Amino acid sequence: MHMSQVSVAIAGASGYAGGEVARLLLGHPGVTIGALTGASNAGESFGRLQPHLVPLADRVLEPTTLEVLSGHDVVFLGLPHGQSAEIAKALPDSTVVIDCGADFRLTDAAVWEKFYGSPHAGSWPYGLPELPGQREALAGATRIAVPGCYPTISSLTIAPALGAGLVTPDVTVVAASGTSGAGKAAKTNLLGSEVMGNVSAYGVGGVHRHTPEIAQNLRGVAGTDVVVSFTPLLVPMPRGILATVSAPLVDAGTTAAQAREAYAAAYADEQFVHLLPEGIWPQTQSVLGSNAVHLQVTVDEAAGRLVAVGVVDNLAKGTAGAAVQCMNIALGLPEATGLTTVGLAP
Amino acid sequence: MHMSQVSVAIAGASGYAGGEVARLLLGHPGVTIGALTGASNAGESFGRLQPHLVPLADRVLEPTTLEVLSGHDVVFLGLPHGQSAEIAKALPDSTVVIDCGADFRLTDAAVWEKFYGSPHAGSWPYGLPELPGQREALAGATRIAVPGCYPTISSLTIAPALGAGLVTPDVTVVAASGTSGAGKAAKTNLLGSEVMGNVSAYGVGGVHRHTPEIAQNLRGVAGTDVVVSFTPLLVPMPRGILATVSAPLVDAGTTAAQAREAYAAAYADEQFVHLLPEGIWPQTQSVLGSNAVHLQVTVDEAAGRLVAVGVVDNLAKGTAGAAVQCMNIALGLPEATGLTTVGLAP
Amino acid sequence: MHMSQVSVAIAGASGYAGGEVARLLLGHPGVTIGALTGASNAGESFGRLQPHLVPLADRVLEPTTLEVLSGHDVVFLGLPHGQSAEIAKALPDSTVVIDCGADFRLTDAAVWEKFYGSPHAGSWPYGLPELPGQREALAGATRIAVPGCYPTISSLTIAPALGAGLVTPDVTVVAASGTSGAGKAAKTNLLGSEVMGNVSAYGVGGVHRHTPEIAQNLRGVAGTDVVVSFTPLLVPMPRGILATVSAPLVDAGTTAAQAREAYAAAYADEQFVHLLPEGIWPQTQSVLGSNAVHLQVTVDEAAGRLVAVGVVDNLAKGTAGAAVQCMNIALGLPEATGLTTVGLAP
Amino acid sequence: MHMSQVSVAIAGASGYAGGEVARLLLGHPGVTIGALTGASNAGESFGRLQPHLVPLADRVLEPTTLEVLSGHDVVFLGLPHGQSAEIAKALPDSTVVIDCGADFRLTDAAVWEKFYGSPHAGSWPYGLPELPGQREALAGATRIAVPGCYPTISSLTIAPALGAGLVTPDVTVVAASGTSGAGKAAKTNLLGSEVMGNVSAYGVGGVHRHTPEIAQNLRGVAGTDVVVSFTPLLVPMPRGILATVSAPLVDAGTTAAQAREAYAAAYADEQFVHLLPEGIWPQTQSVLGSNAVHLQVTVDEAAGRLVAVGVVDNLAKGTAGAAVQCMNIALGLPEATGLTTVGLAP
Repeated sequence: MHMSQVSVAIAGASGYAGGEVARLLLGHPGVTIGALTGASNAGESFGRLQPHLVPLADRVLEPTTLEVLSGHDVVFLGLPHGQSAEIAKALPDSTVVIDCGADFRLTDAAVWEKFYGSPHAGSWPYGLPELPGQREALAGATRIAVPGCYPTISSLTIAPALGAGLVTPDVTVVAASGTSGAGKAAKTNLLGSEVMGNVSAYGVGGVHRHTPEIAQNLRGVAGTDVVVSFTPLLVPMPRGILATVSAPLVDAGTTAAQAREAYAAAYADEQFVHLLPEGIWPQTQSVLGSNAVHLQVTVDEAAGRLVAVGVVDNLAKGTAGAAVQCMNIALGLPEATGLTTVGLAP
Repeated sequence: MHMSQVSVAIAGASGYAGGEVARLLLGHPGVTIGALTGASNAGESFGRLQPHLVPLADRVLEPTTLEVLSGHDVVFLGLPHGQSAEIAKALPDSTVVIDCGADFRLTDAAVWEKFYGSPHAGSWPYGLPELPGQREALAGATRIAVPGCYPTISSLTIAPALGAGLVTPDVTVVAASGTSGAGKAAKTNLLGSEVMGNVSAYGVGGVHRHTPEIAQNLRGVAGTDVVVSFTPLLVPMPRGILATVSAPLVDAGTTAAQAREAYAAAYADEQFVHLLPEGIWPQTQSVLGSNAVHLQVTVDEAAGRLVAVGVVDNLAKGTAGAAVQCMNIALGLPEATGLTTVGLAP
Repeated sequence: MHMSQVSVAIAGASGYAGGEVARLLLGHPGVTIGALTGASNAGESFGRLQPHLVPLADRVLEPTTLEVLSGHDVVFLGLPHGQSAEIAKALPDSTVVIDCGADFRLTDAAVWEKFYGSPHAGSWPYGLPELPGQREALAGATRIAVPGCYPTISSLTIAPALGAGLVTPDVTVVAASGTSGAGKAAKTNLLGSEVMGNVSAYGVGGVHRHTPEIAQNLRGVAGTDVVVSFTPLLVPMPRGILATVSAPLVDAGTTAAQAREAYAAAYADEQFVHLLPEGIWPQTQSVLGSNAVHLQVTVDEAAGRLVAVGVVDNLAKGTAGAAVQCMNIALGLPEATGLTTVGLAP
Repeated sequence: MHMSQVSVAIAGASGYAGGEVARLLLGHPGVTIGALTGASNAGESFGRLQPHLVPLADRVLEPTTLEVLSGHDVVFLGLPHGQSAEIAKALPDSTVVIDCGADFRLTDAAVWEKFYGSPHAGSWPYGLPELPGQREALAGATRIAVPGCYPTISSLTIAPALGAGLVTPDVTVVAASGTSGAGKAAKTNLLGSEVMGNVSAYGVGGVHRHTPEIAQNLRGVAGTDVVVSFTPLLVPMPRGILATVSAPLVDAGTTAAQAREAYAAAYADEQFVHLLPEGIWPQTQSVLGSNAVHLQVTVDEAAGRLVAVGVVDNLAKGTAGAAVQCMNIALGLPEATGLTTVGLAP
């Protein structure tokens, strides 16, 4: 690492996204972890709040204020939706602000307002460098919007097929997520007793807030509007998303081999996207804790559809890993610094 | 119960399907459980093989032979695919034989051979009485083919939309199943260490054997061939399937309320199919151990699709519950005898 | 059932204990379910609160008031600790009040005050009929205290050894419980993300409130004070408790066979207590949803200890099943009415 | 890293222990991973066998032969019990052989034969450097026996209390383990359907093979024979062990603070043993994938016992992490190279 250490603050460090940023940065050789902040539990011992982060056990959670966050080179925001804009505005332009929340992801103000019901704060460079054109916008950026977890995996899973013109822009996504995607706030429907031994659907019918974000990403790839039918499922595991994405073939004669070629080509230079060996289908366990995306694709001849499946760790590459990856790009560090493609299995 | 007790044998009683038939029949007031048979573990104590079935703890598993099975009024077959035909042929025509396996489900011999790679044994009355015309064929039947678990929930979840002409015959199914659907044979990929904290896809691209069975059911409802894109997922729970089924709307102006009306009408007389209150989406936990199917439906206006979600306990209504329900119909007993719509939650 | 239907109200019906009472009573041929009451969610549809209880889907949760509860033959209380006494006092003496809470379990006021920090409300007949002398006190009772889930299984697992004088009164209990024992109130540490893939200890060192209840039960069996070291664990499953209980042998020469004999003798007449075949150790899955207790016992010669293991469904025989069993005894109905020894596995 | 790269072979690399060694070594800056070997699946693609280890996806599993293993500086053995001795004997004395199996753990031949039923192969330096005297024996060693997972956590959890003379040598251990401890061989009782939603006891009564290993460790600490009552539980999670260990106090007046002081002192210099803040009890999630051990201890005054709880990742610090730690010590590398105290939670 040729540069001096980068000082980093994490706002929302007692939550899942913030805790995962901290976990990853503890393994990042170029970073010094500074302030860890929170809201209602400021003043509490970090060792009690995040006992898995032993090297930070003696820290105390500080309040999320401008004063506390100032003076760091990089500030990660793991805040509830709607709270990032104010803080970001107050921080100096030279501070790299990386927002794990939704506030600055959507470019279309009307779409934002329809799905989030609040005024649009604007849009920042979008932290999914594996999509065409996005990496360039992240280099040197000082404001970055980290993608949503569902949009990350849904977009990467079908982008090559759209990009290569293999399918029509009419995409069906069913994505099964672990529970950490819903955050750490106590809610009855997220209790262990409710989610174990249980799969449920929610946000069905196009109403989930990640739907327009997926459509925005795919429009960028396809060069045309893409219809997205998105259904999220909650499954009994803490981490991981598996997205099943399909779309009608443009040419009924397209083969599975041709589909695989398109995927291999699209991600040939991407170190975090791994097209599995033929016949091996993705499983979330393989990417736990890692920044990897695993993909597989085939063609259903009888149904005339291309079917692709992708997995991601919603907290890692789906949130905090992407955030660290984007920090690396923004600062000109090697993109994989502090990140791994090795998952924790079984 | 005005009739005398029905004597029942269960072949394959040490497996999941056979064990669930036994569990249900222990609560059936009109049945006397006779022989419990198995293959490699014949001679073992049933109390060791199925310790949850306390009233049968002193039984011993007998071999699956014609001699042992003969002399019962009803014989349930929970055997590996391909083993039912021979036994069924040898049993008297008057014995009610209810096959939980696949051998007699498909009517089209060519389709059978394509997906199962063996000669077609024929087809029997199909044990999904909630589909149009099926209940009539089951009354008095002495040979019954119990549907596959995925076909049961996939078909019931979209049938009303097809039946009412709300959608085009181009159906996308993604169904998340608990592990018991894969049976009790020891396989590395089904180890607890492999499936816990993990979601995986398998049989992607139209190759799963339940695909043609779904298509056969839906053709019967739609009156035309139905294209089915079917993707099964394995999720970390022992029981339950949640199917997300969608299809393009015929009329873009169809409302969610109209869709709900079609579903309410289609199942108005079905005691085991429960359309959930508006806004409540199905979860598998609600149907554990029960014979109920829970459904919900809406319309995704932006995507122009109807989206329906259904849940079933794959071992209960998805297999053994359907088997008992069919026995009741065949014998002229009240259809719900020994069955419940009450699930075990949490 | 020769008697007319018994009318029953359930206070706290939106919680886990109350919901389980409702689930069991739906299968009880002698009961009509009357008022279902709650606190903060009174007025809500029961079909949304407890979607697994389909036959009650059209009910509305009523407020927990004397007016609503009055007029039923039996009232089940599934209320937070400390709320039962006032309601119980206001209900007529002739109403059978069955309290699933802790208020009336302990006989020693000083012990109550030490562990619960509030004035002692008194004690009622204790609803664990399998303990010596308890069943007699329940016949005809109109006030019954249902045992805690840990005390039920801990006491039944070691009682025969103490009763037969095989062990010294110095008992070590480590009991692993599913999460539903902690109730349905939303707490961060009970979120699915926190409990899945995780085992934790809590209430270590004799401070858990169930400790004195276990000691009280065992004193009744042993005829002397019994030292109880109790450690509860939270394990990633919704239901079930497995208790490992050991104590020093009085006679180092005691054999496993002698221990088994003592257990077989102690529970020879108990239809819900099942001593497993030799060499088979209990698993919680076998008792899910059932009123059964499964036990096994052996001797560790090298350590000089008797070691017994027991399992129970904490919500069923551990709470609501015991409540229904006690109602049956109190009313003179067959004790097993509406209950089963058959578990839901896998 | 001052030394040149160390070349390493892993025998049994398709199993859980071997896979975890590979996972950790991928993050070890001083190691080059050489041969990956297996038995029945030699010749298969490693990318299919261990899809989470992306950087090794293009490798092929080689057969476990002397020829393949020779020529590496270090050989890790993740073989079934009884297969290590022959290979170890054939490898050059200068090769560092680190055995994750049991063959060389026990020093007493009679005890080995009683519990394993085969001739004793001998004993090697024991890879639990946190126990008194063990680290010294590992420096420069070329044969190392990695401890069993249960012995690791059971021993570390109670050692300080025995070492400080706080408790009598009469220890009760109940340890709840995830399923990966049972290995990757396909067995019916380890199927996901059998273990999810389920806790079971096994090897009860002093018959588990890890019992004498715990006793051997504790004898070394206490300076006298220690009676060990050990009960293992299988709980529904892939990884992690939580051990609850208690013993009678020597002095009834010993306080929890005194117990904590003894633990703090015993592990003051150990970077992988973390005594949690007062009042925080261990949970396995906090150590997933890490080499950390989390401990807490208290005193149960009423029961006159010290109660300690410890957690470990059975595959990491419980097996493969210890193996890597021992390699580091043997080679004179910094002990924590390639290891972390940061767990993967939630």
